[in-house]
Amino acid sequence: MFLAWPLIGGSLALVFVVLFAAGVLRKPEGTPAMVTISGLVRRGAQTFLSREYRTVGLIILLLGGVMACTGLGWRTAVSFAIGSMVSAGAGFIGMSIATRANSRTTHAAREGVKPALGIAISGGAVMGLSVVGLSLLGLAGVIGLFAPDIFTGGKVEPAELLRQAGIVNGFAMGASLMALFARSGGGIFTKGADMAADLVGKVEADIPEDDPRNPAVIADNVGDNVGDVAGLGADLLESYVESIIASMSLAAAISLSAVDRSLMLLPLAVGATGTAASILGVFFTKLVGRKNPQAALTGGTYLAAALTAGAAFFLVDWLGTDFAGYSKLGPFWAILAGIGAGVLIGLTSEYYTSARYKPVKKLAEASDTNAAVTVTEGLAVGMESLGIPVIILAGAVILAHHVAGMYGVAMAAVGMLATTGMVVSVDSYGPIADNAGGIAQMAGLEPEVRKITDHLDAVGNTTAAIGKGFAIGSAALAALGLLTAYLTTIGTTVEATLANPLVLAGLIFGGMLPFFFASQLFRAVVRAADAMIREVRRQFEKIPGLREGVEGVLPESDKCVDIAARSALAGMIIPGLSAVAVPVLVGFLLGPLALAGVLVGSIVTGVMVGVFTANSGGALDNAKKYIEEGNFGGKGSRAHKAAVIGDTVGDPLKDTVGPSINILIKLMAVISLVIAPILPAVTG
Amino acid sequence: MFLAWPLIGGSLALVFVVLFAAGVLRKPEGTPAMVTISGLVRRGAQTFLSREYRTVGLIILLLGGVMACTGLGWRTAVSFAIGSMVSAGAGFIGMSIATRANSRTTHAAREGVKPALGIAISGGAVMGLSVVGLSLLGLAGVIGLFAPDIFTGGKVEPAELLRQAGIVNGFAMGASLMALFARSGGGIFTKGADMAADLVGKVEADIPEDDPRNPAVIADNVGDNVGDVAGLGADLLESYVESIIASMSLAAAISLSAVDRSLMLLPLAVGATGTAASILGVFFTKLVGRKNPQAALTGGTYLAAALTAGAAFFLVDWLGTDFAGYSKLGPFWAILAGIGAGVLIGLTSEYYTSARYKPVKKLAEASDTNAAVTVTEGLAVGMESLGIPVIILAGAVILAHHVAGMYGVAMAAVGMLATTGMVVSVDSYGPIADNAGGIAQMAGLEPEVRKITDHLDAVGNTTAAIGKGFAIGSAALAALGLLTAYLTTIGTTVEATLANPLVLAGLIFGGMLPFFFASQLFRAVVRAADAMIREVRRQFEKIPGLREGVEGVLPESDKCVDIAARSALAGMIIPGLSAVAVPVLVGFLLGPLALAGVLVGSIVTGVMVGVFTANSGGALDNAKKYIEEGNFGGKGSRAHKAAVIGDTVGDPLKDTVGPSINILIKLMAVISLVIAPILPAVTG
Repeated sequence: MFLAWPLIGGSLALVFVVLFAAGVLRKPEGTPAMVTISGLVRRGAQTFLSREYRTVGLIILLLGGVMACTGLGWRTAVSFAIGSMVSAGAGFIGMSIATRANSRTTHAAREGVKPALGIAISGGAVMGLSVVGLSLLGLAGVIGLFAPDIFTGGKVEPAELLRQAGIVNGFAMGASLMALFARSGGGIFTKGADMAADLVGKVEADIPEDDPRNPAVIADNVGDNVGDVAGLGADLLESYVESIIASMSLAAAISLSAVDRSLMLLPLAVGATGTAASILGVFFTKLVGRKNPQAALTGGTYLAAALTAGAAFFLVDWLGTDFAGYSKLGPFWAILAGIGAGVLIGLTSEYYTSARYKPVKKLAEASDTNAAVTVTEGLAVGMESLGIPVIILAGAVILAHHVAGMYGVAMAAVGMLATTGMVVSVDSYGPIADNAGGIAQMAGLEPEVRKITDHLDAVGNTTAAIGKGFAIGSAALAALGLLTAYLTTIGTTVEATLANPLVLAGLIFGGMLPFFFASQLFRAVVRAADAMIREVRRQFEKIPGLREGVEGVLPESDKCVDIAARSALAGMIIPGLSAVAVPVLVGFLLGPLALAGVLVGSIVTGVMVGVFTANSGGALDNAKKYIEEGNFGGKGSRAHKAAVIGDTVGDPLKDTVGPSINILIKLMAVISLVIAPILPAVTG
Repeated sequence: MFLAWPLIGGSLALVFVVLFAAGVLRKPEGTPAMVTISGLVRRGAQTFLSREYRTVGLIILLLGGVMACTGLGWRTAVSFAIGSMVSAGAGFIGMSIATRANSRTTHAAREGVKPALGIAISGGAVMGLSVVGLSLLGLAGVIGLFAPDIFTGGKVEPAELLRQAGIVNGFAMGASLMALFARSGGGIFTKGADMAADLVGKVEADIPEDDPRNPAVIADNVGDNVGDVAGLGADLLESYVESIIASMSLAAAISLSAVDRSLMLLPLAVGATGTAASILGVFFTKLVGRKNPQAALTGGTYLAAALTAGAAFFLVDWLGTDFAGYSKLGPFWAILAGIGAGVLIGLTSEYYTSARYKPVKKLAEASDTNAAVTVTEGLAVGMESLGIPVIILAGAVILAHHVAGMYGVAMAAVGMLATTGMVVSVDSYGPIADNAGGIAQMAGLEPEVRKITDHLDAVGNTTAAIGKGFAIGSAALAALGLLTAYLTTIGTTVEATLANPLVLAGLIFGGMLPFFFASQLFRAVVRAADAMIREVRRQFEKIPGLREGVEGVLPESDKCVDIAARSALAGMIIPGLSAVAVPVLVGFLLGPLALAGVLVGSIVTGVMVGVFTANSGGALDNAKKYIEEGNFGGKGSRAHKAAVIGDTVGDPLKDTVGPSINILIKLMAVISLVIAPILPAVTG
């Protein structure tokens, strides 16, 4: 009976996926030129996705085989495979529609803001609701198959209950591995292409942005979809699933002391309710959008959050129970802390990265001195921006633990992530609007159309910054939830003290990993850009008439897509291997306590590096745009030149490194949780 | 009787301070122009020091007053004041000689490499030996005055022994507060001046480096002394003192279970022996220097380390004892682990920042694409460079703990820092050589002289990179030592588990602080540079004949020194206040467990940010120099322009932020240790 919640919530989401997708596909595609360009982008995205899925598929087979042959068993391996397929499926559906919504948005922009916004939002909602819909159904399936006793209420041994919860954890690990490739690989793809397109196009060949002559431009547009639609979706899908399974694992551990199993249902119920709230939020945005797109997008997000908070109260009141000394309503306050923290962290990101506030304005002013000053000030903005989010996170942890213990910390993550459907919808809207602008430019549409798409794009930039802050904050909470589940599973919280040398050494080592990971990603982006720059130079040299823009002469953009895709997957080898290998090696060689230290260390510096890079990059990007609007000399001025360099430094910071760090800390935490049952026992 | 060790070691060091200082002062000062320039630099340095000491003096009075009126008592307050005075004294002596050795080195360079190297080394050794000499004597004094029972061997209550050790901790806190101002204030001063001199001089007015017409050049040369002589000295003095007092505190705690007090003497004996080894190392360098300055400097350092390791064996064999289940020789292995880790971390820094190895060469190559690529690659180098040092540190912690418990961790720090005298001597040599080059340029000496000083300067750059790696590694170990002493003092290691929400929240919050601190320092540097750039532009505009270089027209360089000094002290307000206030507020409001979390969090991210910024900056600096040597197009090429921007970004990273983070983590740890006895008790 309990499985009804995720089944109904998930099905509801998928019904709306179909409705929104049909709504998008019904609209006209625009002129033949637009159809061609949109087709190139779509095929490019498909090329990357199919390669990525093949690679991940192989790894899943390999790791799944290892899991099946070890103490983890074949059930965990199957659960793992299903998790990765759910994530891949959501990415595939979301990308298919997003790359079809782009030209339709451009076409609709010829009639005005409202119809264009409507299509872009619907396109985004397909991704957002696929993420939560497939997650809930997948979880329901895995639980139904392998962990039936969790919900039947049948009397089983406590150890058996924990074992079943362990199988479900495999599902999250699958989603996490997929997310690593989608997010980091996508990040390398998108910024390699972006850097190459900018450096060769604007700087060397002196042609404008999104010019159809530039062979890297299609790859750049593909990258927006690959990184910001599929990547972000996979990232939040992972957090969403992990927050739920962490709470369920902790509830299973509490159940050992014979508490009602409703605590295990609660995260699923909150997730299902948040999905319904997200659907309402999307409709709100579509209705209000005609007047103020910005207000519509943020308004819809807040509405979904408020509805989820309200629903959580009734759910906790109904399902809740006194446990381990905490009062019945404790989990509600924890959920509320999570929702509030998510909203506040998003607002802080907006303050530090929007041109409406002081930090970005001062950054633009600093560009008037020198590019080095721009970069330095940009790094300073990102580092300073850590203060408030970190205090909010720390406060949420203390509060959630005060009202409901470790379970509360995990439930705060569930609360923050309950509106994932809405958050991903809004975030996926951004690249669709961005692509629509690119298509308008490449197809040579009227300037009025470009103006509308630019406006929609600018709105998308702000929501993207908020979304990134949210993604990192929620990743941190989800990872902390996983950590507490891990500590509970290894059955020792007492020995994991700061005075333990293995814990201390683990903390330092784990703290290093996000930096190491970041360095490898930086390198991969630079290498990808380098390879593409060579290819673009070659095409400009070898294809007669391309640089001059002779009618009918087209660049071989598929070659650039191919290079970006190959570089992205090659760049994943070292980071991917280390993210998977470190928890396993540390866990088996140095033991579970050292691994606990590594996890906490990676979460601590991961949060810092994640927020710092995201906000530095966002601020540098918007400072450049602020100057381009005519401030401090406008386009072509000394300040603008400095700001362009700053933006190019900021791009891989915010779109490759920042988001990938989320995945790193979650992947290591979920792997640790999965292998926890077979780790050597703690020895004092 | 036990006090004989620090008394003899300290006095010996001071004897050689006098000898080396006399040796430097005996040499001729050079031409009148050189005397004038050297005098300007010296007076500038004195201006800054006296302002700094006045400011710190006021803060010492204030904090000392508070300490005296609280449970800490007047003895701790006096000990605190003595600690700050010892650090100030060492800085004053070292700077007085360093700023007199510069023109004498230039003059000697007219005769060849050997005499010039000799003077520069002697000048550096005055600073290096003042640091260890005054530290040892100061410690002996404070122990003799306020903690006599530590060494008399008289029978006292265990609690009384711990109370007396607590008073000695105040000494370290004084040294730490002084170091904060010397290092961070000096860092802002030096990089603000450097940035201004470069941006206005090379970029705007198009005049060469160290041109006497540039009003910011004297401030730039003052900055080298202020930041790299006085700042570095104060930094390592602090680590040196803290490693000793942390070991003594832990030994006092062990003594509670009635172990021989020789464990308390051991750190002082190792420190005194390391001082003697450092004196031999300096002589070795002076003797071998004629052939290969680089080999002489590193050879002297390794010799001192090897001698200390050998002496430590005999000391431990003589003073050591079985304790708490560890074998007698345990502390020796811990000391050896510390010495080895220091050497290895230094070598890693060299690999990542020297133009002889791949990372810097590739960075120079990347500059050929674009400045943004240079900066990105530079950040990547720094982040990657964390891997090995962190693994070495983590390994040293595990090893040291394995052989001698928490006391072992603290003794590893003592081992690493025992050769502080030699390390500071070598590091202070760098700025003297750098200044000598500047004076040669400004006084218009023959190109051959400049060539010799350039060579000596280049050698100094490599040793500076090694020294920075060493400073951070040792700061981390010293801070870990203080942390363990703190955990022992609050009397609870069991409750400080990773599952405790206050510890977790503290970890996240503490992890944020180095980034926040860094952002404020970046800002301060940019502000200082900005103010100086305005002043330089004003002078070029208002002083007739200055830009044209008319004979006898001199810039008003004292105004630039004044601006730099004021900006540096103003820029210290927020970082200084937060470093002092955070441990106190967290400790009293959230309790000692949350504070433990904050300390560990700040150490973890502090190590990362410290090493990353130091190595990124060093690599960017040397990549620029590598290009200037004629690679990738040499001076004036596209690659060089990009590398100059990269270097300007790297400068505050390596000389302001990186070193200051050392101080931050140590200051917070030592304040926590000092207030530990009066914090509220741990409540579950």
